[in-house]
Amino acid sequence: MKSPVTRTLEALYRRYASLKDGQVADYIPELAKADPDLFGICIATRDGQLYEVGDTRRKFTIQSISKAFSYGLALEDRGEEHMLAKIGVEPSGDAFNAISLRPDTGVPFNPMINAGAIATCAQIVERDGMDRIARITEYLSRCAGQRLTVDADVYRSESSTGHRNRAIGWMLRNFDIIEEDPREIVEAYFQQCSLLVTCADLAVMGATLANQGINPLTGERAVAHEYVDNVLGVMASCGMYDWSGEWIYRVGLPAKSGVGGGILAVLPGQLGIGVFSPPLDSQGNSVRGIRVCMDLARELALHLFNPSAVPPPALRRSYNASQVNSRRRLPQAALRTLRRFGERIRVHELQGPLLFSTLEPVIRVLVKQAPYCQHLILNLSHVPAIDDVSARMLAEFAATIGDSDSRLHLCHVGRFHRSLLDAGFSADSIFPSEDAALEHCENLLLGDLLEGPIEAPSVSLNSCGLFHGRSEAELERLDAGLETMTFAAGQTIIHSGDSADAMFVILSGHAEVLLRLEGDRRQRLDVFSPGMSFGEMAFLDSSPRSADVIALTDVECRVLTRKFFDELGRDHPALQAALLHRIALQLSERLRHANIEIGALRS
Amino acid sequence: MKSPVTRTLEALYRRYASLKDGQVADYIPELAKADPDLFGICIATRDGQLYEVGDTRRKFTIQSISKAFSYGLALEDRGEEHMLAKIGVEPSGDAFNAISLRPDTGVPFNPMINAGAIATCAQIVERDGMDRIARITEYLSRCAGQRLTVDADVYRSESSTGHRNRAIGWMLRNFDIIEEDPREIVEAYFQQCSLLVTCADLAVMGATLANQGINPLTGERAVAHEYVDNVLGVMASCGMYDWSGEWIYRVGLPAKSGVGGGILAVLPGQLGIGVFSPPLDSQGNSVRGIRVCMDLARELALHLFNPSAVPPPALRRSYNASQVNSRRRLPQAALRTLRRFGERIRVHELQGPLLFSTLEPVIRVLVKQAPYCQHLILNLSHVPAIDDVSARMLAEFAATIGDSDSRLHLCHVGRFHRSLLDAGFSADSIFPSEDAALEHCENLLLGDLLEGPIEAPSVSLNSCGLFHGRSEAELERLDAGLETMTFAAGQTIIHSGDSADAMFVILSGHAEVLLRLEGDRRQRLDVFSPGMSFGEMAFLDSSPRSADVIALTDVECRVLTRKFFDELGRDHPALQAALLHRIALQLSERLRHANIEIGALRS
Repeated sequence: MKSPVTRTLEALYRRYASLKDGQVADYIPELAKADPDLFGICIATRDGQLYEVGDTRRKFTIQSISKAFSYGLALEDRGEEHMLAKIGVEPSGDAFNAISLRPDTGVPFNPMINAGAIATCAQIVERDGMDRIARITEYLSRCAGQRLTVDADVYRSESSTGHRNRAIGWMLRNFDIIEEDPREIVEAYFQQCSLLVTCADLAVMGATLANQGINPLTGERAVAHEYVDNVLGVMASCGMYDWSGEWIYRVGLPAKSGVGGGILAVLPGQLGIGVFSPPLDSQGNSVRGIRVCMDLARELALHLFNPSAVPPPALRRSYNASQVNSRRRLPQAALRTLRRFGERIRVHELQGPLLFSTLEPVIRVLVKQAPYCQHLILNLSHVPAIDDVSARMLAEFAATIGDSDSRLHLCHVGRFHRSLLDAGFSADSIFPSEDAALEHCENLLLGDLLEGPIEAPSVSLNSCGLFHGRSEAELERLDAGLETMTFAAGQTIIHSGDSADAMFVILSGHAEVLLRLEGDRRQRLDVFSPGMSFGEMAFLDSSPRSADVIALTDVECRVLTRKFFDELGRDHPALQAALLHRIALQLSERLRHANIEIGALRS
Repeated sequence: MKSPVTRTLEALYRRYASLKDGQVADYIPELAKADPDLFGICIATRDGQLYEVGDTRRKFTIQSISKAFSYGLALEDRGEEHMLAKIGVEPSGDAFNAISLRPDTGVPFNPMINAGAIATCAQIVERDGMDRIARITEYLSRCAGQRLTVDADVYRSESSTGHRNRAIGWMLRNFDIIEEDPREIVEAYFQQCSLLVTCADLAVMGATLANQGINPLTGERAVAHEYVDNVLGVMASCGMYDWSGEWIYRVGLPAKSGVGGGILAVLPGQLGIGVFSPPLDSQGNSVRGIRVCMDLARELALHLFNPSAVPPPALRRSYNASQVNSRRRLPQAALRTLRRFGERIRVHELQGPLLFSTLEPVIRVLVKQAPYCQHLILNLSHVPAIDDVSARMLAEFAATIGDSDSRLHLCHVGRFHRSLLDAGFSADSIFPSEDAALEHCENLLLGDLLEGPIEAPSVSLNSCGLFHGRSEAELERLDAGLETMTFAAGQTIIHSGDSADAMFVILSGHAEVLLRLEGDRRQRLDVFSPGMSFGEMAFLDSSPRSADVIALTDVECRVLTRKFFDELGRDHPALQAALLHRIALQLSERLRHANIEIGALRS
């Protein structure tokens, strides 16, 4: 089935395939041979999906598009301040081949004009036995996700006719912008411009810049994270020569063109676009390439300043402990207390990357809630990224509310654990799961509010929910018929898959229900404490056990076997009915709670 | 409780309050009087939250910051192509007061230099009895969210010394860029520059641009949506005079400065920043303002090209009809069929604004699922915006899979209903709720898979789930003791809040459970069909009815009263136990389903 995205690109291709304006570059003989009918359009998303139409796998020379990437490499070698001292970042308003040096210092206006690109090349260090062109080739190859090679014919043609660029090299040497013999540097520059790429390569290189510098096809880091915005910034202000202002005004995407007919454009954080069509306009930009980018930007509403690209609120879902509780099943008194006072524990599920503008509205909510809440829990399981700013803001906020009686807890922090600690967040307030955080907060809240302990360490038969309201005589009958079983901590009480011939009542100790997931993972579904019963659902419908029940501590149980249950049905049907009534009541209570939870989760 | 954002601004204020570099503007006498110690910092978010430190409510003249907004007004009056013919959008590389006209045409390089701003002013139409300065004042006032006024002293001072700007006016007249007497236009320009604003006003004006042109304080549209990106684009490339390239490289935010000491910066889609401090550097930009913006951008990681600002996936949550069903309760056979084949109906909850880059990954998933699914349901309840591109992509995709056996359905489309229809989406495939969409798809799927009808139109007592497995004699006993009640369509069977002295079994017709919400709204919780029972939960624990039950059609019921139930307990305890067993089984089944649903909703 064809994606609507592919259909959009096909429509664009048809629209401009017949456009015959422009001339293929003829300043070197080799480029003049290009077939003017070649035409390809490719979009690569930041997660590596490619949409392609036309000649997207045809090779051509990268030319000036290489300048943006060699600038990134030079930044990694030399740092921002050094590079700014050597090469400016102001648009010159001049054509691509203008010399454009500051008259007093000889500093090239920017790295996207030839003078700036040659000066950039000079800043790239020879390292690990690799000379400049080897390092440039490797760097661009990482961005494209495959090994690029130099077109020897084009390189020879560039070299044999590139007198103007040699003049620029010597002029830069004159001003000491280049501090060594410029000849080898200019040759490396010619080779860099002669690297062969395809339209699809350009889109992937763009997607690499859109994707924080990580190549989405290989997963490999290609551009250092800290310099991605410098590269895109200089493309935005200077990428299209003396048409850069109008480009950013009309198309709104950082971009770079080359006289080989390629254009690479980037929607930061989203995607890369590659277009290839050799005929150029008078500014040296691909005629079809410009038209395709303008139409794509408009038709797909891809605009850097497009304000509709606002991330959704980082608050995914909120609830409190009167609606949703830890998996541990609580005694009635504790549960009633939570229903009444549970709003003092609030859980906020966050989503999306946390950065200043997404976290700020969350902090605003927390600042409002803190005076009324004892515990604020942030669940980060849907948060794919936390920047340093957000980690610091969270730590600062936690420290501030710590001065009052409130606490901020985090759960599901995953790989951000280290950076949260580094930002000053207390390890005590980070929990592996929402369940663990909720249980911790419930215990603290119930400890404050309940007179006695949350639960009795052990109970007798008449304190068990299942036997509530039974007479002395009935309790004696039950005591005689119920089996007694004890389990050591860690022992399995119920095996998933077994047939259900009994249900259990806990007199002392705790047991948990665990669901086996893929691999070795298990998920806690429930924790039972003294007085509670378990295993009744499979017991009722004689279905196989659906999960394991494990003794968390040493556990003493009374066991209602099917044999005894059937005996009761024959000999004491009213007692059996009373037990079934209690079971139905308990199920009804759990169903009510489940419906509250579903309501809270759906909201 | 103080927000960490305010603390960040306070730290910045302390850092730079003692910085004494720069000189207040002295090119007109009135500006030279400014107090160099005044210093204010304000952030306004796109939803109208203000964070302020220092002299944020002190008035000063807006000066060149007005240029960005009067350009927006001129665009609204004249359109993009007309404005581009009159004024370029290329950075000039020259200082703010350079004349910078294209030598051949006299076209000013861009609207951020004085020549371009005066030419812009000339394009503003006199309308509705308002002259140019009245319209400019009104426009900027809408952006600031309050009525701005001209500082008469500064205006007089500007006017009495502004000979250079008069020269520019006449030069523009010479080239016919201005086609009337330029004197009145230059006066309007002087007045525009003399409008009084505060640092907080600047932040709000920035937030208005960040918020698609809608003032976040007043909710009023201030800048036409279509020109917001033009205004921000020209600020990005030309806003800081001959330091614009370095500004966008280092700070990365579209911005505009004024010689009154103000700087306005915008993070598109997120927030506006206003800084006020009169001492200027040699380029005419506020010294403290530049430092504060650079530090803010770095410390809060506010960068236009910051690739961490990636929206989270538009796919919020996915499940299928084997996990989550419509509220209508289905007979066992139908339910078993859905458990087995429910994956053929898939529900995707979307979130965040739908635009190309957020919808594309969703479409990718749908393209993969379409061959295996009969029904794809998109729930848009968490979608705050759908751009035209996304509406068109959805309509195109629906048309394409319509050619196969699959269908795309939408629900909770809210105010996007019209634009989805306009984009070509079929009205038949839009449902008011996920529940309605699910029920529709379940009916189609079950119609294909089940031999007979999904449910019987009417049943006898022995076909009711509650009485399943009872003997002839028991059924006769029940028939004698159960009351019979009929209800007309629309009649209330159970009133919320009433005491629960009976439970019901439906012989024919349908009834729905409705929860009363705030206002007149009601939420459907359940729909029952023949053979099902309802009202058992409150009946069991004698609690008040928690919701209304309404007859959807004419309904015939058998009613198990508490009186009869208690009689059974005395006279036929085994029959009572059997009924309780069936109730417990049904509750157990519903609880299992609720737990599956909770699992799907939590994932």
